[in-house]
Amino acid sequence: MTETKTMDMDTKNQQFDRDLGKIIAFLEESAYFKARDLLLKYNAVDIADMLEDILEDLGVEKVVIIFRMLPKDVSVDVFSYLPGEDQVNIVQAITDREISYIIKEMDFDDKIDVLEELPANIVDKILEKTPREERKLINEFLNYPEDCAGSLMTPEYISLQDTMTVAEAMAYIKREAVDSETVYTCYVKHGGRKLEGVISLRALVIADDDAIVGDLMETDYVYLNVYDDQEEVAEAFKKYGFLAIPVVDNEHRLVGIITFDDIMEIIEEETTEDIERMGGVMGESDKEYLDMGVFRHVKNRLPWLLFMTVTLMITGSLITQFEAVLSQVIVLVAYLPLLMGTGGNTGTQAATLVIRGLSVDEIDLKDAAKVLWKELRVSIILGIVLSAFNFLKITLIDHQSPMIGLTVAVAMIIVVMFAKLLGGMLPMGAKKLGVDPALMATPMISSVTDMVSSVIFLLTASILLGIAL
Amino acid sequence: MTETKTMDMDTKNQQFDRDLGKIIAFLEESAYFKARDLLLKYNAVDIADMLEDILEDLGVEKVVIIFRMLPKDVSVDVFSYLPGEDQVNIVQAITDREISYIIKEMDFDDKIDVLEELPANIVDKILEKTPREERKLINEFLNYPEDCAGSLMTPEYISLQDTMTVAEAMAYIKREAVDSETVYTCYVKHGGRKLEGVISLRALVIADDDAIVGDLMETDYVYLNVYDDQEEVAEAFKKYGFLAIPVVDNEHRLVGIITFDDIMEIIEEETTEDIERMGGVMGESDKEYLDMGVFRHVKNRLPWLLFMTVTLMITGSLITQFEAVLSQVIVLVAYLPLLMGTGGNTGTQAATLVIRGLSVDEIDLKDAAKVLWKELRVSIILGIVLSAFNFLKITLIDHQSPMIGLTVAVAMIIVVMFAKLLGGMLPMGAKKLGVDPALMATPMISSVTDMVSSVIFLLTASILLGIAL
Repeated sequence: MTETKTMDMDTKNQQFDRDLGKIIAFLEESAYFKARDLLLKYNAVDIADMLEDILEDLGVEKVVIIFRMLPKDVSVDVFSYLPGEDQVNIVQAITDREISYIIKEMDFDDKIDVLEELPANIVDKILEKTPREERKLINEFLNYPEDCAGSLMTPEYISLQDTMTVAEAMAYIKREAVDSETVYTCYVKHGGRKLEGVISLRALVIADDDAIVGDLMETDYVYLNVYDDQEEVAEAFKKYGFLAIPVVDNEHRLVGIITFDDIMEIIEEETTEDIERMGGVMGESDKEYLDMGVFRHVKNRLPWLLFMTVTLMITGSLITQFEAVLSQVIVLVAYLPLLMGTGGNTGTQAATLVIRGLSVDEIDLKDAAKVLWKELRVSIILGIVLSAFNFLKITLIDHQSPMIGLTVAVAMIIVVMFAKLLGGMLPMGAKKLGVDPALMATPMISSVTDMVSSVIFLLTASILLGIAL
Repeated sequence: MTETKTMDMDTKNQQFDRDLGKIIAFLEESAYFKARDLLLKYNAVDIADMLEDILEDLGVEKVVIIFRMLPKDVSVDVFSYLPGEDQVNIVQAITDREISYIIKEMDFDDKIDVLEELPANIVDKILEKTPREERKLINEFLNYPEDCAGSLMTPEYISLQDTMTVAEAMAYIKREAVDSETVYTCYVKHGGRKLEGVISLRALVIADDDAIVGDLMETDYVYLNVYDDQEEVAEAFKKYGFLAIPVVDNEHRLVGIITFDDIMEIIEEETTEDIERMGGVMGESDKEYLDMGVFRHVKNRLPWLLFMTVTLMITGSLITQFEAVLSQVIVLVAYLPLLMGTGGNTGTQAATLVIRGLSVDEIDLKDAAKVLWKELRVSIILGIVLSAFNFLKITLIDHQSPMIGLTVAVAMIIVVMFAKLLGGMLPMGAKKLGVDPALMATPMISSVTDMVSSVIFLLTASILLGIAL
């Protein structure tokens, strides 16, 4: 038991940073063996993390040297965990023989991921050296559209026959385990390629040696179609909490399995995309913030900004229609941001809750009436509280006339109710039309509420203060 | 092979909705056996889903009747998957004997979750009937602070001795499997309670029968401390993609394990909380949108709204300081929303990206300079594009004087740069201070940029248009 074993996560992170610093120092003075030995204290995920940082700090040459010094089995694992662009960097710097070895030893689904990233000439070179059978399979997998179940699955699963005994099945698993992504769920067929059932290794371990697999297997298993979108794949994993889900083609032939560890990333990516869209940033989130170039950032942010510039200009023109009101009671200008801001803020709250509710399946399209009813009641209470607060502030602290206070208060209630109902409904409308509800967050809501809030406010003022437009 | 087996997820969802409709119709006409038989075509997760909907539509009585008609083993699983409040509803409607049976049969970690939700008098009644040994363990688990690793773990794991042979270990696993949350990772001790290593069932299956567990086990395993926050727990699962992670106390004694399926929910909850905070909604997201009462919704939304009301009022007062400028050139009022809005929007984009980057560990506190540099360049380009666009629109379409166009354009560049840098820095500053960066999204950013943008705009106007304040 070394001391390392009794640290919690925080201390571990500090230790990680310290060791990374040491390794970088070793590499700078070309003390490669010292660097390697310290590196090898960590597991493959951590080593990949460190190599990423080293690549950023010291460039690709040092990383390739240290990468080549890793034991072969470790280097394959580490390579799998590196991000796509770093893999390409390393592949371009090492020999064809080293590449072939690494690619050959990688898990099938990781292999497909790397081949998708690599330049075509390198892929061709690798495929030349791959056995014909596997080459065919690789080509098939490379042809599935990106982001569908087919592009996420691996063909490396354990498949059993329903006529096997448990002892036969266990012996078979023992032989095949090395080449399988998971041995914990096995897939049962009856002669052909069609999937008949699944059985867990746990069930096999518990069962008697001479029990028959076909009698033990479960037939009410969950499965995915090879063309299911990755969002549906993620949904299925979130819903059922399984380790692996089989993927079948349209004839219900088993073509691969997807394991939960590959899905964690997908779920995170999908969430990031949602969050970024809600914050008015478009584009795919396939690259990290720091790795994305300045122009890509500009391109992702400009569409919404231009859209909002146009709507804000319209809001401006609408306001000038009320010049008569504004020039007579210039103090109203001071309360314009208040009304517009409150409209945007209350609308955003409702939209955020409904968008998230839709995305985690807590809210359904058929709940539209319930959402409206909820937002209506919430908005009335919030509207009254905010109005009262503002009325008191305007009359008692700003020493404005009660009519000004009343104007703001009345407009406030209307604005809050409008914004909450809009924020609740827009995402549901988008979903109904097949548009991503996440697009209906802050930018869209605030564009609409800005316009409507200012008109409501200035109309209320012209009526209550008796100013002709 | 039934027809059901060849459907993809979409068709399956339709089928689910259709069957749910039928079951509800059966229950309405009290055709309980028909309802039960149809229900039993689904697996426990789906049945729990259906019961939730039925409870909402028909009330708790019908649900309890149908729940009692489920086979005992199914009912235990279904009960585990029901949300807390539905569990409480059912517990209050069934007999003590039925409760005891269900609680006894549940997985230990699910049991703890239910006991945490139930009223104290029912918990006492259940604990009375629990064997003394288990009662002690339950009380210990109930005492861990919520949201820490201790409250998520289960004591139902397989623990092996390092001196066992593989054959002995397999025989032991076969005996203990039923009572374990997972058999796929086993935990190895040496006599005492201290954790010495882990070994996967896969490794045991592959190994020779007379190999020694201590020689095969991995010692560079990942583990958590019992008081680690659930966010750290989720991080560890996301990072390593393991099925289960052992939890140790401060003396490195193994006290439980956490399995990945329990973490998927935590990750989703944490993300929901982040997203809601970014949208200006406070409070825990332990309840679904529709299940949360109106007053709870008001309570969660009011704090930010009041905060923003105050800042918007300050913005209003700042604007009135420029009454001289505004009353001389009233058209500036039309461009005020444009400047304020653009400030809020551009700032929100930067904040969203940085908050998400921090939360998925793509951005680190030490990257602050890189983030600043990135946002600076992005903001200069965006500022120039937006300024040019606005200048042309104002002079060519609005037919305003070039000086008005220039005022807007100059103020726009300053506002965009300020907002982007603020949006990039506020979340990092918050993290540095130990405050949740998600709190620095739209509400906070737009509050600050509203104030600053209007002042920048009106100051620029007074300087460029030569109007004394």
